[in-house]
Amino acid sequence: MKLHILGCYAATPSLMGNPTAQVLEIRDHLFLIDCGEGTQVQLRKHRIKFSRINHIFISHLHGDHFFGLPGLVSTFQLLGREKELHIYGPLGIKEVLLMLLKVGNSWTSFRLVFHELEGKDPIEIFKDNKVIVSTIPLSHRIYTNGFLFREKPRERTLNIEAVAQYKIDKAYFKNIKKGKDVLLDNGETISNALLTLDPPKPKSYAYCSDTAYSPGISEWIKGVDVLYHEATFLGTEAHLAAKTKHSTAEEAAKIAKAADVTLLILGHFSIRYKKKEAFIREAVPYFPNVQLAEDGKLVIF
Amino acid sequence: MKLHILGCYAATPSLMGNPTAQVLEIRDHLFLIDCGEGTQVQLRKHRIKFSRINHIFISHLHGDHFFGLPGLVSTFQLLGREKELHIYGPLGIKEVLLMLLKVGNSWTSFRLVFHELEGKDPIEIFKDNKVIVSTIPLSHRIYTNGFLFREKPRERTLNIEAVAQYKIDKAYFKNIKKGKDVLLDNGETISNALLTLDPPKPKSYAYCSDTAYSPGISEWIKGVDVLYHEATFLGTEAHLAAKTKHSTAEEAAKIAKAADVTLLILGHFSIRYKKKEAFIREAVPYFPNVQLAEDGKLVIF
Repeated sequence: MKLHILGCYAATPSLMGNPTAQVLEIRDHLFLIDCGEGTQVQLRKHRIKFSRINHIFISHLHGDHFFGLPGLVSTFQLLGREKELHIYGPLGIKEVLLMLLKVGNSWTSFRLVFHELEGKDPIEIFKDNKVIVSTIPLSHRIYTNGFLFREKPRERTLNIEAVAQYKIDKAYFKNIKKGKDVLLDNGETISNALLTLDPPKPKSYAYCSDTAYSPGISEWIKGVDVLYHEATFLGTEAHLAAKTKHSTAEEAAKIAKAADVTLLILGHFSIRYKKKEAFIREAVPYFPNVQLAEDGKLVIF
Repeated sequence: MKLHILGCYAATPSLMGNPTAQVLEIRDHLFLIDCGEGTQVQLRKHRIKFSRINHIFISHLHGDHFFGLPGLVSTFQLLGREKELHIYGPLGIKEVLLMLLKVGNSWTSFRLVFHELEGKDPIEIFKDNKVIVSTIPLSHRIYTNGFLFREKPRERTLNIEAVAQYKIDKAYFKNIKKGKDVLLDNGETISNALLTLDPPKPKSYAYCSDTAYSPGISEWIKGVDVLYHEATFLGTEAHLAAKTKHSTAEEAAKIAKAADVTLLILGHFSIRYKKKEAFIREAVPYFPNVQLAEDGKLVIF
């Protein structure tokens, strides 16, 4: 998977950085996660092909997470898009987006497919033969979901040497990769374990922004490879985090620890913090493998 | 007057430039004209004080002219604004903006005052003791207005030497500046023309974007100091201009000539044109005093 962080700042676009948007590359998909103002310029800057984005996931309807969406949809139209575009987001997103298109008399000639969310339990919202996406209900000032992206297990990898040694015909390969044993013409059965290697472990990514400290979510994201968790504030501003239903770096790290993730990325920083080393210092005692988000950062895992 | 051009490109934000937004400084006012995506970052970049903007004029509801408005209003709220904010724009702007605030449960604590427009004739929409703003109905794919900003005539300037020579008491100065003659105690009348100088000529600015070629508008903007007129296309793409109800550089120059303006600024360029000298070459035969808009350009007049 490749995670392109396009914007990782809270509240308002500034000269310091962009509001939230990310692109997750996963098994031929380009999933756009949140879409703050300026996202389309960030997409161009990082040379991400607009035409490959078919699914957009919006966590919640605060402006810094979706005010870039109307402009992006309009630009898709200007670029002559024909493929349908799937938008996943809180109930209400359809009405507001369609009204924006209506007042501009700017209907799209491609199909917009809305998947409006209102549940309070995690649900699967996208699934194909390679990837599953589920919601992670979060606790914020308005209805908000994080998103969990999981690769499906890949087929077993053919052990080329073993297959040659047993002189297995190509016709069997498809079934072998699916995990089946081989029954040879001479009646002998060769166990699949002798003919295949374990496939790469399926990867997973959890996006949790915006949210107050919610220990419960660690159950839903157990063992993910990468967790992006908001840390709008440092502990010195814990009172602001509590008031605005955001998290501190310490709280994000505690979630990462409880969920036993591999890597924690902190983001959604308040622009009050000019330097960010303190976020690392605050998180490390609770969870050591932590990185800071940055606009333009690419994480490959 | 000072005109800060924040964005002068058509259709979509890009790495090349920003969609339409300008700030006009006129007699203590900072008027924001149109507000494409990214305007608030441009305001910061050019160090324009958000708190001094009390009036926003939106020409029409295509995204490249107003998708930056919801974010700007949200940022005003984050900055703790208390003063009321006046928004002038086509009928519908109130409903769409309030819906965006509603879905984010992000009501402003300052008052939003909407002035919705739907007329087809020029009307005065703002007036105080220094400035008058009127609409310039334009011809575009959706309901659109340009805006005409006129300084009111200033008071006459006291001729200090003459006043001293006639030994006129300070008590008379207020009335003298208003153009009145002075009746001295000895019964002598001193004509105002002897005591005052002409004030500076009131300045005026006309903003016309987006519009098809509309010769009729020159009557409404006769003799303005500066005309900003859209020139989305060159004459080589006149068919596109006609189809999309935009203007070419030649057409903009013809309006400037017919209206007898002092300076023409061309803007709202399609991003298809990488170099812009051709806009000047096309306009000059019809109107010589022409400049190109540029993001970040400051015009003082």
